[in-house]
Amino acid sequence: MSTFEEQDKIGMDAAFQQAYISYKEQNGIPIGACLINNLTHEIIGVGHNERVQKNSPTLHGETSCLENCGRLKANIYKNCTLYTTLSPCIMCTGTILLYGIKRIVCGENKTYEGEIDLLKSRGGCEVIVTDDQRCIDIMDQFIKEKPEVWNEDIGEED
Amino acid sequence: MSTFEEQDKIGMDAAFQQAYISYKEQNGIPIGACLINNLTHEIIGVGHNERVQKNSPTLHGETSCLENCGRLKANIYKNCTLYTTLSPCIMCTGTILLYGIKRIVCGENKTYEGEIDLLKSRGGCEVIVTDDQRCIDIMDQFIKEKPEVWNEDIGEED
Ligand SMILES: [Ca+2]
Ligand SMILES: [Ca+2]
Ligand SMILES: [Zn+2]
Ligand SMILES: [Zn+2]
Repeated sequence: MSTFEEQDKIGMDAAFQQAYISYKEQNGIPIGACLINNLTHEIIGVGHNERVQKNSPTLHGETSCLENCGRLKANIYKNCTLYTTLSPCIMCTGTILLYGIKRIVCGENKTYEGEIDLLKSRGGCEVIVTDDQRCIDIMDQFIKEKPEVWNEDIGEED
Repeated sequence: MSTFEEQDKIGMDAAFQQAYISYKEQNGIPIGACLINNLTHEIIGVGHNERVQKNSPTLHGETSCLENCGRLKANIYKNCTLYTTLSPCIMCTGTILLYGIKRIVCGENKTYEGEIDLLKSRGGCEVIVTDDQRCIDIMDQFIKEKPEVWNEDIGEED
């Protein structure tokens, strides 16, 4: 069993739970995230996309998670894993690069390619894509229902 | 007189006013921003760094401004100028790239180099640095007083 095997299951379950809550309980976009300290294996915080709920263009799953974690010292981020149900966009990637988070686990990158190459090349990040069918299915369902909200979330015209 | 001369003065004055309010009235980091619609020349929204005020790692001047603007359609961003008192970090640059804002006016890039090259190369952005002494001075004063808060804001260790 790898060092991260148990942590990664906990982290992705928590991220998916956030996506599920956003979608099923709040009519929001089903993308969630979770930040775990690799040294203590404890969850620092979780979050989900808040576009619909808070009229927010900046609270994607990843940024919402980091926002909910509050102010952290630089060295904390550097020993964390960020779990996200979907491959990070350029905004969330910039946020990850700013704070120097070095390990990223994504549920999927089929719905949205995201910036995995930039995370690796510029941030030296380890990026793992788990191909989590729960994450794929919930996004499929959402995009069929509300394609215009999804396009808005990624800055694309309808 | 260039098309943008009057708009740019209004935009940078509003961005600086946000920086000033953050610092002088709220003990916050003195970085502000303003989004103006290039077609109507109207201010869509303003904002300032909220690290101290809201315990926020994601609300820099630029992201706070965009957050205060709320949800906008993709084509709106593409015809806007974002004014910011300081050259955008990689998080804020990622946000600008996500939404396709094409014109960025920065008060200064001496305190912090920022990602002007990435805005130009990847976003095809026009980036103007105005060398605004007000913006330089207020950051100088803040960083002398609270270097540890500034380092935290840019993800650097003390
Ligand atoms: Ca909001
Ligand atoms: Ca907060
Ligand atoms: Zn994102
Ligand atoms: Zn920034």
